[in-house]
Amino acid sequence: MTLEAIRYRPGSLQILNQLLLPHETVYDEIRSVRDGYEAIKSMKVRGAPAIAIVGCLSLAVELRAGAGGEDLVSFIRDSLCHLTSARPTAVNMGRAARELMEFTENESMEKNTEPLRDSVIGWIEEMLERDVNDNKKIGNYGAQHILSGVPRDSVTILTHCNTGSLATAGYGTALGVVRSLHALGRLKRLYCTETRPYNQGARLTAYEAVAEGFPATLITDSMAALAMREKGITAVVVGADRVVANGDTANKVGTYQLAIAAKHHGVPFYVAAPSTSCDLSLESGRDIVIEERPAEELTSINGVPVAAPGIDVWNPAFDVTPHQLITGGIITELGVFLPSELQAALTGRLTAL
Amino acid sequence: MTLEAIRYRPGSLQILNQLLLPHETVYDEIRSVRDGYEAIKSMKVRGAPAIAIVGCLSLAVELRAGAGGEDLVSFIRDSLCHLTSARPTAVNMGRAARELMEFTENESMEKNTEPLRDSVIGWIEEMLERDVNDNKKIGNYGAQHILSGVPRDSVTILTHCNTGSLATAGYGTALGVVRSLHALGRLKRLYCTETRPYNQGARLTAYEAVAEGFPATLITDSMAALAMREKGITAVVVGADRVVANGDTANKVGTYQLAIAAKHHGVPFYVAAPSTSCDLSLESGRDIVIEERPAEELTSINGVPVAAPGIDVWNPAFDVTPHQLITGGIITELGVFLPSELQAALTGRLTAL
Repeated sequence: MTLEAIRYRPGSLQILNQLLLPHETVYDEIRSVRDGYEAIKSMKVRGAPAIAIVGCLSLAVELRAGAGGEDLVSFIRDSLCHLTSARPTAVNMGRAARELMEFTENESMEKNTEPLRDSVIGWIEEMLERDVNDNKKIGNYGAQHILSGVPRDSVTILTHCNTGSLATAGYGTALGVVRSLHALGRLKRLYCTETRPYNQGARLTAYEAVAEGFPATLITDSMAALAMREKGITAVVVGADRVVANGDTANKVGTYQLAIAAKHHGVPFYVAAPSTSCDLSLESGRDIVIEERPAEELTSINGVPVAAPGIDVWNPAFDVTPHQLITGGIITELGVFLPSELQAALTGRLTAL
Repeated sequence: MTLEAIRYRPGSLQILNQLLLPHETVYDEIRSVRDGYEAIKSMKVRGAPAIAIVGCLSLAVELRAGAGGEDLVSFIRDSLCHLTSARPTAVNMGRAARELMEFTENESMEKNTEPLRDSVIGWIEEMLERDVNDNKKIGNYGAQHILSGVPRDSVTILTHCNTGSLATAGYGTALGVVRSLHALGRLKRLYCTETRPYNQGARLTAYEAVAEGFPATLITDSMAALAMREKGITAVVVGADRVVANGDTANKVGTYQLAIAAKHHGVPFYVAAPSTSCDLSLESGRDIVIEERPAEELTSINGVPVAAPGIDVWNPAFDVTPHQLITGGIITELGVFLPSELQAALTGRLTAL
């Protein structure tokens, strides 16, 4: 089975409440934009792609129930504005809102209320489908690329943070590659790092692995190099917050250290990301500002203090892995590319794999 | 001030109860071998050198109070046997017990009870003094070696786990080097990793840093490589569970990954360890068996579950850093040596620094 973090049927939306994971599996009904906003704001749903999907689907549900009446364009504009304000740093929601608003305004030129309503609902439902399909392509391209190096053998993958069904519209990016390998019967074992300080690996990736029946082992972030030496890691596959033009990749803190360890052991290092996470407007990773987060994420766990009072803390949320360390390639829905090929591939000047 | 984890005055022993750290600073009185055994067994005191010192000092306290009567040799033998059984893997206690028993038996050939009692007490008190002095030498040799590369500048050190007053007889090994740099006014900043899964860095090293007034910053283990790139780390200094003949070093898990990151950034990597932690009977690190510890250390923190139920866990307690990655040197009480010089230095065929 595939873990469903987002259950959508036309007119009905349920989301897996991630605040209760990994200890309780509870689906919350989302009946309105207000419910969607609350779910995003309270972090019942997280992961930039998942936030955008849940936000837009909450609008689709309300539109199907007849909301907005005659002034549909204003209703959609207000709803998207509200949804975008729930987590201002989640860029995917902002981008989806801009695209959907542009679509709505264009459609409203030539359509009356009810046909316009159907068009907007259709756009949102297609967005869900497209995201899942893109992730499946990423999974399959990545799996094929990794397997091409090891004919007939099963493979051992190491991943970081959570990039699965819980962070995306479904299927996942880096964890989608693992899912594809498992579906092909070629996944020997997944090693997932706990991913301090927010423990997405221990809480979410481990939860998905257990739910899907992947053979999977949890390690601390500091054991990754030892796992490469002792456990025969075939490849490291991680997701991305942002990939820039030269292939430098911003991702959850710890990714850079993993890439160095992979290079040291000659283990291919892959980044899996949809083309929508690639930002060709930035030349190199030096242009990416590293966000620093509150000290409390390190000094307490589930509200329990774990560090000595009074100690200073440095808590960068992500780091930038230079393209030279991305030795396996960048896995997108268009194929797997070397960092040096990425720009040409995304602008249509190169096809792969 | 220097944090006193072990407070000994002839006839009186108090230890800082590490079970209550970092939230409460409480000294427990150790009046007997039984108290010493309990403190070791319950992990009020930890760290292989500290265990041996506290065990032997608890015997000295009881001997000063007149314990053992006329059958002193039997009393000492039984006491040491009991103390050694508290934590069977703590090799330093076993070694100290063997040495002290040999000394006792030799002395008993020529001395009556009361002179023998004085000799044994003297041996134990000298052991405490020698350990602290050795650590001070390690601190000073290490500080000089690091500073020799950066005339006039102050330095930024990264360390892992806890190797300070809380793990030794006093002063510390790797943290002793930091202490010496601070005393010289040359410590710009200490970065300490939290050291998952048992959090010795966040709990103990951070506690010592705050107590001593070191400028110090806590990071997750996964941020070390980023700190090397962004924060101008001058050197990495770690302790050792065991250093073997070719310089390969077993230490807290995560050390190997740190050494790889240091090599990648051209940052000198030092191991600080007394010669008693060097085991020339083993040729290389391949001969060291990696101890695996219970899954619960990863899946719960302070008794609170943090990982998805049902996930497999790999929890090696330490790893082996190959000598090629120990680029700064091995800091002992005899001087700082390259791994290739260690064997000659320890067997008296080479003097440094």
